[in-house]
Amino acid sequence: MEFELSQDFLDQFVVYIEAKNMSAIEQIADDLYPADLAVILAELEYEQAEWVLNGFEKSLSAKIISISETEVRSKVLERMSPETIAPLVSEMYSDDAVDVLNELKVAFREKIIALLDTEMAAHVVDLLKYDSDCAGGLMAKELVRANIHWTTQECIEAFREQAKDIAKIYAVYVVDDHDTLLGRISLSSVILAKPETKIAEIYTDEVIYSHVHDHAEDVANQMQKYDLVSIPVVNAQMKLLGRITIDDVVDVITQQADTDLQAIAGISENVEEDDTIWKLSWARLPWLLVGMMGGLMGAQFIGQFETELLLVPAMAFFIPLITATGGNVGIQSSTIVVQSLAEGDGLQQSIGLRLLKVFGVALINGVVIAAVVFGFNLFFIKKTGLALVVSTAPFSVVILASIMGTITPLILNRLGINPALASGPFITTANDLLGLAVYFMVAKLLYGI
Amino acid sequence: MEFELSQDFLDQFVVYIEAKNMSAIEQIADDLYPADLAVILAELEYEQAEWVLNGFEKSLSAKIISISETEVRSKVLERMSPETIAPLVSEMYSDDAVDVLNELKVAFREKIIALLDTEMAAHVVDLLKYDSDCAGGLMAKELVRANIHWTTQECIEAFREQAKDIAKIYAVYVVDDHDTLLGRISLSSVILAKPETKIAEIYTDEVIYSHVHDHAEDVANQMQKYDLVSIPVVNAQMKLLGRITIDDVVDVITQQADTDLQAIAGISENVEEDDTIWKLSWARLPWLLVGMMGGLMGAQFIGQFETELLLVPAMAFFIPLITATGGNVGIQSSTIVVQSLAEGDGLQQSIGLRLLKVFGVALINGVVIAAVVFGFNLFFIKKTGLALVVSTAPFSVVILASIMGTITPLILNRLGINPALASGPFITTANDLLGLAVYFMVAKLLYGI
Repeated sequence: MEFELSQDFLDQFVVYIEAKNMSAIEQIADDLYPADLAVILAELEYEQAEWVLNGFEKSLSAKIISISETEVRSKVLERMSPETIAPLVSEMYSDDAVDVLNELKVAFREKIIALLDTEMAAHVVDLLKYDSDCAGGLMAKELVRANIHWTTQECIEAFREQAKDIAKIYAVYVVDDHDTLLGRISLSSVILAKPETKIAEIYTDEVIYSHVHDHAEDVANQMQKYDLVSIPVVNAQMKLLGRITIDDVVDVITQQADTDLQAIAGISENVEEDDTIWKLSWARLPWLLVGMMGGLMGAQFIGQFETELLLVPAMAFFIPLITATGGNVGIQSSTIVVQSLAEGDGLQQSIGLRLLKVFGVALINGVVIAAVVFGFNLFFIKKTGLALVVSTAPFSVVILASIMGTITPLILNRLGINPALASGPFITTANDLLGLAVYFMVAKLLYGI
Repeated sequence: MEFELSQDFLDQFVVYIEAKNMSAIEQIADDLYPADLAVILAELEYEQAEWVLNGFEKSLSAKIISISETEVRSKVLERMSPETIAPLVSEMYSDDAVDVLNELKVAFREKIIALLDTEMAAHVVDLLKYDSDCAGGLMAKELVRANIHWTTQECIEAFREQAKDIAKIYAVYVVDDHDTLLGRISLSSVILAKPETKIAEIYTDEVIYSHVHDHAEDVANQMQKYDLVSIPVVNAQMKLLGRITIDDVVDVITQQADTDLQAIAGISENVEEDDTIWKLSWARLPWLLVGMMGGLMGAQFIGQFETELLLVPAMAFFIPLITATGGNVGIQSSTIVVQSLAEGDGLQQSIGLRLLKVFGVALINGVVIAAVVFGFNLFFIKKTGLALVVSTAPFSVVILASIMGTITPLILNRLGINPALASGPFITTANDLLGLAVYFMVAKLLYGI
C-alpha cells in the first residue's frame, strides 16, 4: 500500500528526466502522493529536481516543497529565482510558507515576499515575527471563522467564499465583530441546523485555545490531552490570530522524542544517518570528549591509590563492575524522571517523596546486586575482605547513583534545560567518578589497605 | 489556560464527595474537560471515584473512563457490577469500548457484552478479534460512509441519522453496494455541491487506507507521512471495516518513543514514576544484573593480567577511560541507526555503505581522542610507552564499538526485535568487555609486558 522507493524506480525516473519526458513523469506522479514525490525528489540532483518542479502544476510543486525536508528544499530553492519561487509560496498555507521562507537568506526572502499578493504577504510578515518553537510559529492564518451574529445560512455562504481553506476545515471558530474568540461550532452542526438558525444559539463556548507565545511542546501536550485536531491561537486580548493543526503538532512530538533520544545517547546536534561524515563526527565528539575527560580524571584519581593497588591488585579487577553499575543505575533513574516530567499530568510528587521512593528502589536493587557480587567473590576469589569491599561498593554506588540520577534532571528542568541531557554521558561520567570514589573509600575503610 | 491539579483543589473536591454534595461537584465539572476530570479521578479512592462516576451523566462518565489510564480505570471497573458498566460502555466509541473491555477478565467481560445493545455488541465482538498493536486493534467501527450512487442530498440525510458519529466526522468514505472502499469525499464538498449532484461525480478515488492486519507503527508512519487525520481500514477484499483517527495514532507514537527511551535506559517494563517501589525495582533489576555479570566477567578477564598489573599498576588507572569510551561510542552509533530505522523513509543505505561511513566517523573521532589522551599522558605521566598503549587502545575501541553499535540494531531489526534494545545496557556491557580486551591486548603487543 505505502510507496517505497527502490533503486530501479529511481533509475527509471531519472531516465525520463534525462529524456525530458514530462508526460511519463506526470503519469508516475498521478499514482503517487506529494509525500512520495518529496521522497523521490530528495534523491535527485538539483537540476533534475528543478526541472521536475517546473513541469508539475504549481499547486503540486508547492505541496511537494512544503513537505520536503529542510536540506532538500533549501538545496533546490537557493538556486531558483524569486520570480519562480513566489508563485509556489502563494500556493502554500501560510504556516508552510513561513517555514520555507524562514530557511532562506533575509535579502532573498524579502525579494520573494515583495512578489506575493497583499494578503499572503501580510500573513507571512505577521507570522515571521514568531519563534518557530512557540504557538505563533506553528499556526497558520487560514481558518474558518463564523461571526456570532450570523445565521447558519450566512455561515455556509462565507465558507463557499473561502474555497482554498475549505479543504482543511476541522473546526469553525466563533468570534464577535472584533474578532474576539468566543467559542467554536462543528461544521456538522452548521449543516444540520435550519438555515435561519443563529450561530449564537447553537455554538459552544467551551473552546480550548493556545496563547500565541505558548511553547510548542505545551501546545502539543494540550492537543494530545484533549484529543484536539486543531486549536485556535489568540493574543492576550483573546483576539483570534490563527490555528494550529494536528499534523504540525505530531511533528513537534516526534522531534521532541528524537531530541530526547539523542540527548540520552550523547549526540549534540540533530543529525541523521545520511548526513556527512564530518557533521556526524562533529555531533558526537563533544560528549565523547566529556567522557574522555572523565576517564582521565578517573585515571588521576586511581593514580592516588597506586601503592594500595600494588598491595592488592585484585582491587583493579572490579573497576569496570563499579563504573558500569553506577552508569546503568544513573541512566535508569534519570530516564524515569525525564518521562514523568514530559507527561506532566496529575499531582506532581514532592522532591522529598520522590527521593524516598528512589531510595526504596535503590535499596532493593542494591541488596540484590551486593548479594550476587558477594557470593561470586566468596566462591571464585575466596577472600572475604575483598568480597566485602567489592559488594559494599556497588551497594553504595546504586544508592548514590539513583539519587543523583533523580536530582539532576529535576534541577535541569527547574533551570529550563532539557532534562533528557541529564540521562546522557554527563550522568554516566559523573557516576563513573562517583563510583570510583566510593569504591576506593570503602576499600580504605573496610579492607584497611 | 490548561487545568493543573493542586493539592488544595483535590482536598476541596474530596470534602464535597464526603458531604455527598453532587451539585457542587457538577459545578466544578462544568468548568472542566473530561481529560481534567480523569486526572482528578486518578487521585481518588475507589469508593470516591465510583460515587462521582455514578453521579455524572452517563456520557460524561463514559468519556472520563475511556480517557483514564489503564490502572485507574481497571481499579474502578473491577469493583463495579456488569449492570453498571454496560450502559457506560454503550456510550463509548467502539474502539474505546474494546480497549476498556480488553482490560477486564474474560468472564466479567462476557457478562458486560451480553448487556450491550445488538449493534454495539456486534462491533465489540468483531473488534476483540484483533491484536491491540495492529490496525484492527486501533480502529473504530463508527464511520460515515456514502454510497457512490447517492446524491449529496441523500448523503446529508444519512449524516443526520448518524447523529452520534457526526461529532467526529473527519472524512466521508465512498463505498459501493457491497461496502467496497472506492474513495473519499470531504464533508465540505458534500455541503458545497448542489443537492442533486451525485457522489460519483465529485468524490476522489485517491484514498490512502490501511489493511486490518497492518502493524500499528506502520499505520502511525503512514498517517504522519501523508498528514492524515483519519484513515480507513479494509480487509483483503477491500471491504471497509472501520477507521482510525489521529488521536489514537498520536498515542501509538508517544508510546513507541517511551518504549525506545526505556529500552535505551535498560528498563524492562513500561513503568512510571508513580508505580510501586516493587514494580520499579523489578523493572530495573534484569539489566542491572546483565551489567553486573558483564562487570564480573570483566573482573575475571583482568584477573588474567594480575602479574602484568603488578609490573605496571598504571595500566589500571585507565580502565574507566577505556570502558567509558566504548560505552559512549556504542550508544551513539546505535541510536543513530535506531532513529534512521524508525523513520524508514527514502532510499535505504546498504549495510556496506553504512559501515563505510561509520568507519569514517569513527576514524575522525578516534584520532581526536587518541591525540588528546596521548598528549595528556605525555604531559602528566611522562611515560611514552604507556602513553602509546593508553591512546592506541581508545582509538581501537572507538572503531570497534562504532561498528558493533551499528551492526547490532540492524541485526535485531532483521530479527523483528525492537532495535532500541541494542542501545541499552546490552551494548554498553558488550563494549566494556570489548574495550578491556583491546586494551590489554594492545598493551601486550606494544608495551611488551
